[in-house]
Amino acid sequence: MSNPEIASEREITDRAVSSFAHTPDARLRFVLQKLVAHLHRFASEVELSDAEWSKAIEFLTATGQKCDDVVRQEFILLSDVLGLSMLVDAIEHRNGVEATESTVFGPFYIAGMPYREYGENMALVPGSASLITGHVRDAAGNPLPGATLDVWQTAENGQYSGQDITQPHGNLRGRYRTDELGRYAIRSVVPVSYPIPTDGPVGQLLQAAGRHPWRPAHLHFMLDAPGHRRLVTHVFNDDDPYIESDAVFGVKDSLRAVYQPCRAGDPLAEQFDIGTDFRHASFDFTLETAA
Amino acid sequence: MSNPEIASEREITDRAVSSFAHTPDARLRFVLQKLVAHLHRFASEVELSDAEWSKAIEFLTATGQKCDDVVRQEFILLSDVLGLSMLVDAIEHRNGVEATESTVFGPFYIAGMPYREYGENMALVPGSASLITGHVRDAAGNPLPGATLDVWQTAENGQYSGQDITQPHGNLRGRYRTDELGRYAIRSVVPVSYPIPTDGPVGQLLQAAGRHPWRPAHLHFMLDAPGHRRLVTHVFNDDDPYIESDAVFGVKDSLRAVYQPCRAGDPLAEQFDIGTDFRHASFDFTLETAA
Repeated sequence: MSNPEIASEREITDRAVSSFAHTPDARLRFVLQKLVAHLHRFASEVELSDAEWSKAIEFLTATGQKCDDVVRQEFILLSDVLGLSMLVDAIEHRNGVEATESTVFGPFYIAGMPYREYGENMALVPGSASLITGHVRDAAGNPLPGATLDVWQTAENGQYSGQDITQPHGNLRGRYRTDELGRYAIRSVVPVSYPIPTDGPVGQLLQAAGRHPWRPAHLHFMLDAPGHRRLVTHVFNDDDPYIESDAVFGVKDSLRAVYQPCRAGDPLAEQFDIGTDFRHASFDFTLETAA
Repeated sequence: MSNPEIASEREITDRAVSSFAHTPDARLRFVLQKLVAHLHRFASEVELSDAEWSKAIEFLTATGQKCDDVVRQEFILLSDVLGLSMLVDAIEHRNGVEATESTVFGPFYIAGMPYREYGENMALVPGSASLITGHVRDAAGNPLPGATLDVWQTAENGQYSGQDITQPHGNLRGRYRTDELGRYAIRSVVPVSYPIPTDGPVGQLLQAAGRHPWRPAHLHFMLDAPGHRRLVTHVFNDDDPYIESDAVFGVKDSLRAVYQPCRAGDPLAEQFDIGTDFRHASFDFTLETAA
């Protein structure tokens, strides 16, 4: 016996779906009616008990109450660990063909960070030196001078400035611009893997599910260029132990880059005035023409 | 083209479902995997946009933050107006056959309210007098002496004591017991229809959907008797203008009762010492044997 076929339950579902039939906005009507239908089908299919429903109410309430106005957004985190954020991203980019792939935005972006020079070091605290360089191009392969790369990453303690208030303002964040040849260069520290916050309901969910909370090391990018569609993505460290099991499903093969070991005396070190051994990754971006 | 068939989206869904494959608790694993599958199918089917996803995150966050530890539970309210609460109730009572039907518990119950005598008036403030009487029986029709009826309703301003802190403690609340013949009698005021709270996200949702927030007049009951399954239900005023459009879908035909007009001099008025005209409803309960 298929549970959703029980007549009294189907009747409740029908009544709830119908209650949204007069929603003035047609798109909202469509979305709400589908939401109710799927939500009810889920509950009927798993035969959701009253006790489980109570747990869910508690969980959602705690998730909302864990959010603050600054950096903690537990519902985004929930969406992330359920794979919903990546799915919405995929839906948004159904027709994106030639561009660099996108991935989750995450909750740790801060707008208005300092503009930085070509090759400037955005690490304001010591760490294992890195350099990432590449081109930004349009879909036809033409370089895009004057594109902006808004960049952010965690410190070696796994925390972002802003989230970790002991880090200086703007640490490991900044806005770079491509030069006249469409090139960018960012000095920083090598990104590290880090756990998403586990001290809230989402952490409890992962623990109950036997899932780890780690994200593979990555550098966040938001790219803008006039006449082109904004690109939000990460570049992932190819050799990270969590590269195949990102807690938020953000990894795509095309977004992996190898951080090659380089010596203090290498030509790149001289060019960018890096006085230590470091690691260098190379990654090119392609932006889609704006619709 | 059916959207969930887009390969990259199906792959994200598969990955997210699989991530819960090692949940130690088998029931939790089943529920979480179904939840993720339904949630993803919904998003793919409606082609949920990034902007809509952001709105949903905001809405859920605000819903959690509207809850307090006392009387306001906005997530229960959300579940109620989406028909989920009634669906869970129906699932819980799939095999209940002979008993009085149940309905939503609602967020306004308070435990530990005063015990009241047979026929005692639980209205501590003036209002339009009512009397409700009936029997509590088992499924075989035998009267159940000593059953407890925990009862609550709003005042004529549409608010419950506890929610409305200007009402005296225990107003329109109380625990009655059946007499040796399984009879109960409750003096009170005639229930009124009232809107669910509309000053939060759920109110905004109803407004956007063109739905009214009204619940038809009702009296809440929670019945307990040794050896029997607890029953949570309402008795609804049959003539209420919202009887066919309860904002939370709680009405069942078997739970409607007619409040008959009675005169101050009627025998019932004398029996229960009611000095004014009043309304009388009669309603019998049947409790299921405990599993």
